Amino acid sequence: MTEQFKTYDIVMIGSGPAALSAAIYTTREDIDTLLVEKGVIGGLAATTDWIDNYPGFKDGISGSMLAEQMRGQAERFGAQFAMAEVSAIVDEGRLKRLVTSDGDIRARAVLIATGSDHKKLGIPGEDEYYSRGVHYCATCDGAFYRNKKLVVIGGGNSAVQEAIFLTRFASKIELLVRSELRASDVLLHELENHKDKISIRLGVTPVSIEGNDMGVTKLHTRGTQDGRSMSIAMDGIFIFIGLKPNTAFLKGSPVALDDVGLVTTNSQFETTMPGVYCAGDVRSGATMQIASAVGEGATAALIMRQWLERSA
Amino acid sequence: MTEQFKTYDIVMIGSGPAALSAAIYTTREDIDTLLVEKGVIGGLAATTDWIDNYPGFKDGISGSMLAEQMRGQAERFGAQFAMAEVSAIVDEGRLKRLVTSDGDIRARAVLIATGSDHKKLGIPGEDEYYSRGVHYCATCDGAFYRNKKLVVIGGGNSAVQEAIFLTRFASKIELLVRSELRASDVLLHELENHKDKISIRLGVTPVSIEGNDMGVTKLHTRGTQDGRSMSIAMDGIFIFIGLKPNTAFLKGSPVALDDVGLVTTNSQFETTMPGVYCAGDVRSGATMQIASAVGEGATAALIMRQWLERSA
Repeated sequence: MTEQFKTYDIVMIGSGPAALSAAIYTTREDIDTLLVEKGVIGGLAATTDWIDNYPGFKDGISGSMLAEQMRGQAERFGAQFAMAEVSAIVDEGRLKRLVTSDGDIRARAVLIATGSDHKKLGIPGEDEYYSRGVHYCATCDGAFYRNKKLVVIGGGNSAVQEAIFLTRFASKIELLVRSELRASDVLLHELENHKDKISIRLGVTPVSIEGNDMGVTKLHTRGTQDGRSMSIAMDGIFIFIGLKPNTAFLKGSPVALDDVGLVTTNSQFETTMPGVYCAGDVRSGATMQIASAVGEGATAALIMRQWLERSA
Repeated sequence: MTEQFKTYDIVMIGSGPAALSAAIYTTREDIDTLLVEKGVIGGLAATTDWIDNYPGFKDGISGSMLAEQMRGQAERFGAQFAMAEVSAIVDEGRLKRLVTSDGDIRARAVLIATGSDHKKLGIPGEDEYYSRGVHYCATCDGAFYRNKKLVVIGGGNSAVQEAIFLTRFASKIELLVRSELRASDVLLHELENHKDKISIRLGVTPVSIEGNDMGVTKLHTRGTQDGRSMSIAMDGIFIFIGLKPNTAFLKGSPVALDDVGLVTTNSQFETTMPGVYCAGDVRSGATMQIASAVGEGATAALIMRQWLERSA
């Protein structure tokens, strides 16, 4: 940003599917819009190998291509992009001031669309095989593993729920838990009904992921207590150890977060800070699906347009 | 349907973007899904000439192609289609029975995604030039008319609001009202501020639309009282005389409708009838945008999956 104090109608924090969808709507209506991105334009979607279920692509589309198309579409209508990290939102009445790594930006309205990351194990091979055998979303990628052998990692509600869900596809699932299962009684009871497909291994810590050009082949583990090494051959690994919403910059702001750190909104995508909206995976109640994020972005854009008109 | 009493996990009424998106999600998870359509697969989207703002297509895509892609995608995962008209939903406890023009169908859960039609004038040329000069959605098609001359038809809130919105693009707008303006005082006051671009003509009834290969050229009208003929040359006509939600078949059912006949839901897309969900343009609060409908369909599918698991 060369102009340090430029004011926009709308600034969107993030540039994943929710922000790009919203920007297509706002810029097509000549609403002056800037997207501020600290990482990759297109967000998590852009780094996903293959997207099978975003409606409109019969045979699926690569994540990088989908992100490129959405970015190009928003740019065609006049969306502007800045590479910077936002560290705070300050309410100055009619304007919001965003404090960024590249100076201040002001906007009449703000869309928070920073997404959420999946918590990672942080072991060798995890990043290398991301979306080529290492997955964090069963709804997105489970269907690629029909009659395959899977490892599911995690001991909470989501790990147990997704392991049960993956029995629709997989022939065999090993559920690996570092210490003890912490899922609800209802889920543990349901887990019992899937003993034919799901084996539970407690007290096992993942150590590294091995693979080849085709994807992953083996998970190496050690006993959490006894340190005993073990290797499991499988076709895919699903990791469910929690979500990390990108909301650290909102701590201390009037934007309320829920107990896992996601932004709470009303049905109109308004946060608890007037003029500040939220859509996509960072919103409390989000589905972590591109289709849902795109829908929320479009709807939020129409609502923000009305807000700009009312507050003009 | 050859098998008269087949039972499905989910039956979707309608096959527009909301239903197709939901079906991509349910069938990809091997949930047995039937879409019942009385008209065109793809709904209103399929008959739209060009869609500029559905995220993922840099330069836009034709409505028929987008519908074909979404249909092919749902079929690839196993979605089934039936051509029939649903006349009633009957609650039989664990199952819902749909009474259709081709016999009864039973389902564990139902998605209402029948969409809404725009009310039409019913004059010559209106259907012929649909989406080639005759439009019913300013957000969708307004941007095609930068520096062009438009006619807006209607006297209620939405006509006045959309006429004001279209001043972003159009150089000149004639607002034609059959009798008197019926918009809110706030909107009428705002209309005053756009006198430079918007001319209001009261007591004028549209008679026919004239055009050529390039689109529309003229609107012929007569005085509602005096019958005097008049012709207006313009580049496009936007008609805002109301919505017609496709919900006649729900009259007398436990599915509650709002005062314009749209289906009311909670934030989980549940209607007031257990096991019956709703998404897209027929839902109260809908934006009449494909992106929003697709997002609602995907989110509703995930919620319906949980409902099927709970009620298994």
